[in-house]
Amino acid sequence: MIIHEMSRQEIKELLTRASIGRLACAKDNQPYVVPLRFVYNSVYLYSFTTVGRKIEWMRENHKVCVEFDEIDATNSWYTVLVTGRFEELTNAPEHVAERNRAHELLNKKAEWWEPGFVKTIIRDEERPLEPVYFRIAISETTGHKAVKTG
Amino acid sequence: MIIHEMSRQEIKELLTRASIGRLACAKDNQPYVVPLRFVYNSVYLYSFTTVGRKIEWMRENHKVCVEFDEIDATNSWYTVLVTGRFEELTNAPEHVAERNRAHELLNKKAEWWEPGFVKTIIRDEERPLEPVYFRIAISETTGHKAVKTG
Repeated sequence: MIIHEMSRQEIKELLTRASIGRLACAKDNQPYVVPLRFVYNSVYLYSFTTVGRKIEWMRENHKVCVEFDEIDATNSWYTVLVTGRFEELTNAPEHVAERNRAHELLNKKAEWWEPGFVKTIIRDEERPLEPVYFRIAISETTGHKAVKTG
Repeated sequence: MIIHEMSRQEIKELLTRASIGRLACAKDNQPYVVPLRFVYNSVYLYSFTTVGRKIEWMRENHKVCVEFDEIDATNSWYTVLVTGRFEELTNAPEHVAERNRAHELLNKKAEWWEPGFVKTIIRDEERPLEPVYFRIAISETTGHKAVKTG
C-alpha cells in the first residue's frame, strides 16, 4: 500500500458523493466530534441539527474540522479533511435565502431530516426539538488515499 | 425513530467490537479530526500512528475526543463518544510494559499496522516513518442509539 495526496478533482468528487461527515468542534481546547449529515456545494458544507453541545460550542468558537472517508479495507481508503468556519443560518431576514438553500439541498438526500427532528429521550425526558441550520464556510480541504500495491 | 442513551454495557460492547474511531484533537481551539485504528481495553484506548500533525498537537494539548459509530441507516445507528487524555508510550523504560501491551493488543487485529507503517508520498517526497504508540486514558464515555419505530 502507498498513501498519496488526492487531487482537487478527487476531493471534490468525494465531498459530492459523501453524506455523513464527522464534525469536530472545540471549547477551551477540549475537542468534541460527532457524525452528522452534510451536503457539499462549492464553497460550503450545509447541515442541520438540533440544539445541543455542538451547536453551543460552535456558536462560541467558529473553528471546525469535518472528516469524510470511504474505508474499504485497511489498505484501501480515501479520507478528506475540511477546515472551515461555522455560520449559523437563523430565521433572520438576511439568512432566509441561504436557509432555504440549505433546506433544498438537504431535502434532496432521502431521510436527511430524521436525525435532527426525531423524538430524543435523554434520562427519561424528551429533549426539545429546536432545528438549527448551519453551513461550514470551507477554508481548506486536504485528501489522502491508500492504494493497494502488489 | 427514537434516540436513546446507550447503557454502560452497550457502550462497552461497541468499543470492544469497533476498530476504527475518529480521533479529534485541538490546538489554539482549532479542532482536527482523523480516522485511526483503536483497541479498547478497560480504561484505555490503544493506538499507533506515525509522526504528523495529530501527534504534534496531542503532545501540546492532551485533551482528545474519539468517536465510534455503527451506522446502518439514517434511522438505525449507534454512536459512542470517548473523552480522554493522550498519553504517549515512548521507548523510555517506564513505558516499555505499556508499549508492549499496546503492540500485543493491536497485533490481534489483522493488518492493524498497515496505515502507520506504509510508504507515504506527500508532494513527491517520502515521509519518514517514525512509529508512535499511544493510549487514551478514558475519562468519560457516552453513547446514543437510534431505534426504528412503527
